[in-house]
Amino acid sequence: MISLLPFILRPENMARYEGGRVLIGDRSKFPFEKVFHVCENLEEVALAIENMITQGSGPWMAAAHALLLAADEVEGKSADEVQQHLQRARARLVATRPTNTAMAQRLQKSVPVVETALKQRRPVKAALQNWIQDMVSRVYQDYAARARHGAQLINEGDGILTNCFAETGFILTLAMAAQQGKSFRVYVPETRPYLQGAHLTAPSIHELGIPVTLITDNMPAALMAQGKIHKYMTAADLITLDGHVVNKIGTYQNALASNHHHIPYYVFIWGLDPDKPDQNSIVVEERNPDAVKQCLGQLTTLPEIDAVYPAFDITPPDLVRGVVTTRGVLDPAELILHRNQSL
Amino acid sequence: MISLLPFILRPENMARYEGGRVLIGDRSKFPFEKVFHVCENLEEVALAIENMITQGSGPWMAAAHALLLAADEVEGKSADEVQQHLQRARARLVATRPTNTAMAQRLQKSVPVVETALKQRRPVKAALQNWIQDMVSRVYQDYAARARHGAQLINEGDGILTNCFAETGFILTLAMAAQQGKSFRVYVPETRPYLQGAHLTAPSIHELGIPVTLITDNMPAALMAQGKIHKYMTAADLITLDGHVVNKIGTYQNALASNHHHIPYYVFIWGLDPDKPDQNSIVVEERNPDAVKQCLGQLTTLPEIDAVYPAFDITPPDLVRGVVTTRGVLDPAELILHRNQSL
Repeated sequence: MISLLPFILRPENMARYEGGRVLIGDRSKFPFEKVFHVCENLEEVALAIENMITQGSGPWMAAAHALLLAADEVEGKSADEVQQHLQRARARLVATRPTNTAMAQRLQKSVPVVETALKQRRPVKAALQNWIQDMVSRVYQDYAARARHGAQLINEGDGILTNCFAETGFILTLAMAAQQGKSFRVYVPETRPYLQGAHLTAPSIHELGIPVTLITDNMPAALMAQGKIHKYMTAADLITLDGHVVNKIGTYQNALASNHHHIPYYVFIWGLDPDKPDQNSIVVEERNPDAVKQCLGQLTTLPEIDAVYPAFDITPPDLVRGVVTTRGVLDPAELILHRNQSL
Repeated sequence: MISLLPFILRPENMARYEGGRVLIGDRSKFPFEKVFHVCENLEEVALAIENMITQGSGPWMAAAHALLLAADEVEGKSADEVQQHLQRARARLVATRPTNTAMAQRLQKSVPVVETALKQRRPVKAALQNWIQDMVSRVYQDYAARARHGAQLINEGDGILTNCFAETGFILTLAMAAQQGKSFRVYVPETRPYLQGAHLTAPSIHELGIPVTLITDNMPAALMAQGKIHKYMTAADLITLDGHVVNKIGTYQNALASNHHHIPYYVFIWGLDPDKPDQNSIVVEERNPDAVKQCLGQLTTLPEIDAVYPAFDITPPDLVRGVVTTRGVLDPAELILHRNQSL
């Protein structure tokens, strides 16, 4: 299954531990360079995450491997020292992305792993390595389960719109549909201001040999009116228990246009957060508006002009035809029934 | 009235004749430089128009002044020679923008001006200068008439969305509403790929002292959901007799989102073309897709990736609340009743 994925989404290219260092696939230079950012210690991993060297699923994978660097630093020390050091390491990593609750939840699961290893006097680092391997394997199995359902949604001849970089669930869906012999084309908005569509999504799909067309963010509805779009598919940073989709800015207006043109919108879930019942539980992150006033480091307007940068928007459940989960494609109203299950 | 306009929209900064040369305000360098592109002869003006030194109302104003250069070249020649030379000049200028029928129509009106001057043995160049002055004056009077109606649509506290660079009708509307003491804020999408919103619209509005916020093209609907937008106003490259609005790509999806949020969409007309009865008479220009794969000259994706660049989109009349004309704000269904009038 992993062999179907493009370079950037293979787990070993997201982040890996090698010879006492953590190598992080440098998404800030992709697709023009395929290089790794090398971290000698945990602080360097934390800074790499803060400086957007990686994003999407990259931060939690880099952070998990950073715990191995922390374990190296206290090899042979007392159980107390090991536990305290790893506790500080986790706190530093979680602080890199305060809104990334998936990373915090996943790193928390290393605590009993370390405790058990110390109690059984087995090597902590090896226990953490097994834990990472199991976790990555489980996460990718879930991606594959969702992608099998997602691929069923794609028909021969489809035009598929996406937004930003919908990562492994979506890209694997495309790969599986192509493997089934279906021909289709993916339309990728460039996703200003950071251009994740142009930098990550379009090159990843192109690498799979699937036809892909880059567009600017003002084109989706016009292509729908031309009859070129048949499905709209995105990831979600978060889906509330009542089915509101929080995702990269632009997702909502494409969903409105899709709805107007009777084009179904499907969203890939990574899980449910029981602390997010509805859209009142969401605070949309406002990022530094300077990003809006430049492109690839060049100013696009006068520096004294105001800008705003809401990083995400919220799409209500009535615009969502289905949520692609490990258990099939669910109606957003059904999600709450699965609040205690892995999706 | 002209004193209310920002630098870039004052007629003398669009194009002017000065000492045997035509000076064209160089929009390709604005807002970072306020410079003029100097043309010594008609061919240089034609190339400047072809190379996007100017756009919007700039091309016809530059072309009209270029006829003065052509007149200089045949001063004192026979009537036949003058007429033939000016005929060639018009043909060259019209060829710079084959889809800009406004320019062709306006230049055509110089023919009887030249004929009359030759018949009456008056200087051709002076006659053309008077013709240009009259035409510019009439066009700006029409802008002012529309803007007086447009300013009535703006309420205290409004947030106004626009798209691309809606030029003098819209900017003058803002200036007049501000002069009436109304406070409001204009939200300007940057308008990829050429960034006319960031380069031209936002700096022009800022120059007038009116609050303006630059956004990326994927943000309008999210700002509407936040309650920040109360009016949507754009120019139109063309409005068909049955009320379809042809305008810069992105206009349509913002109109869809406005309609969903019960925000009225108003469009400024520059005139009606009796040869464009409905949307079947429109061919949407597909421009070079390489523009979509770069921003300010830097590649945003791999060069081998496909792209499309439909320059315009079409908004149907049911999404248009009103058309701002010299005769008031009309329902798009009423336009056909005015097909023989100046709007």
